[in-house]
Amino acid sequence: MANLTNQKDKLSLLRPILERRSIRNFSKKTVSKKEIEIILEAGQRAPTSCGIQFYSYIQVNSQRKRKMILDLVKENKALETAPLWVFICCDAARPLKMFEHLQIDSYLGESTKLLHSLIDASLSAQNIVIAAESLGLSSVFTIYHWRALEQISKLLDLPMNVLPLLLLCIGYPKEKPPLRPRRSGRIIWHKNKYIMPKKETILRDYNRANIELKRTKYFSENVDGLAHHWEKKFTRNEMVLREKNLRSVLQKHGFLPKNV
Amino acid sequence: MANLTNQKDKLSLLRPILERRSIRNFSKKTVSKKEIEIILEAGQRAPTSCGIQFYSYIQVNSQRKRKMILDLVKENKALETAPLWVFICCDAARPLKMFEHLQIDSYLGESTKLLHSLIDASLSAQNIVIAAESLGLSSVFTIYHWRALEQISKLLDLPMNVLPLLLLCIGYPKEKPPLRPRRSGRIIWHKNKYIMPKKETILRDYNRANIELKRTKYFSENVDGLAHHWEKKFTRNEMVLREKNLRSVLQKHGFLPKNV
Repeated sequence: MANLTNQKDKLSLLRPILERRSIRNFSKKTVSKKEIEIILEAGQRAPTSCGIQFYSYIQVNSQRKRKMILDLVKENKALETAPLWVFICCDAARPLKMFEHLQIDSYLGESTKLLHSLIDASLSAQNIVIAAESLGLSSVFTIYHWRALEQISKLLDLPMNVLPLLLLCIGYPKEKPPLRPRRSGRIIWHKNKYIMPKKETILRDYNRANIELKRTKYFSENVDGLAHHWEKKFTRNEMVLREKNLRSVLQKHGFLPKNV
Repeated sequence: MANLTNQKDKLSLLRPILERRSIRNFSKKTVSKKEIEIILEAGQRAPTSCGIQFYSYIQVNSQRKRKMILDLVKENKALETAPLWVFICCDAARPLKMFEHLQIDSYLGESTKLLHSLIDASLSAQNIVIAAESLGLSSVFTIYHWRALEQISKLLDLPMNVLPLLLLCIGYPKEKPPLRPRRSGRIIWHKNKYIMPKKETILRDYNRANIELKRTKYFSENVDGLAHHWEKKFTRNEMVLREKNLRSVLQKHGFLPKNV
């Protein structure tokens, strides 16, 4: 009996993870100071390379700055309604400064900085997301600001070696979308070696997700399915531009070698 | 009263996040099939760019492959004792194959692939870590295999556009280290703009962590403090080599432009 309760307890702990949906429409209820403190602590508890913490969070609550960012990223429901905005930043600047003050003789190359900080920042970001769920809050990661990384970096006074990776929107939900489909486990989970799934497996998996998304009215009127949705999200022209922008910003900020 | 219970419930949900430690010594108890299924589901529930899931997991349970990997990464307690090994891989290969089968006209540049897959893979990895904690399991991320990325990619039959980012070790703990100190919140959390902390703030924060780590006997005998620990972990020579290796592997696998 004790075991049964224990089992139930364990499974209930998983709820914030297993039932989490991205929310893009938030109620007006604000996020309290206490909630922000818990979120910050949760983010910091994520594993981090040698305890260095290659990341920083930047909360944006200045209405003037929010307006400027919204103008740059264009109309966006999540950003417009979320009471809490947090830029999750890759940060090798503070660790390097710390090494300097401690007179540690080291060297962090561009790819090294990028990998360590991207991993650390993302792990801590996901801790924030799950902590928010546990508190009854909702969230969505956005990357609309990638279109304007340079301007947004200036707006946030970011030095070299800091990159505003994700803009995390947090608040109380004003919608309850269904859980979104994921790839089937056998496509994601390999044993001892990587096996690319066969065409028919990929298409069967795609169809399952597509049917589910249609059933739950995921697509806007002018989109006829998941492939069309992806084609619009990953348009060749936009992706060529994204690559160009990313490279230029990564180089400028110290995360990509100069001579590319 | 209902509110109080509710508040307590919420805080207990946070325990797997707030009380999580990296474990490097595991008991012999294996991870069950059911536990692996939950872990896989948890990983997949992480937010992912447009539902694409730019990642794959590779469980290694072949004793032969484990031995080969251990030989490559050298002696390592966590790897030696962990019953479950999972490589968390950046994977743009399967998404690109899916786009091809669906005849989606797109383009994913090197930096685009790297950022999307690193974010997706890390977010899902942290979900796995927290799910494992919820089940009473422990874990540690390792990157020892970065020394031998090329050999390990071959060993796992990885195609282009797949990168074995993190080797996650999971099992039941055989040690209970204290929570490790983190940077003080005011160094990590900024408001509206980035402010580099002053030298005295950085050093005060460093001293606090250093004292705590000494008190809890974190360092091995030949290490006299955190700065020394970092200097050994981020030795200039080793970091020069790490950068060289990372660049070469990232280029070879399609995550860094060729002409660097």
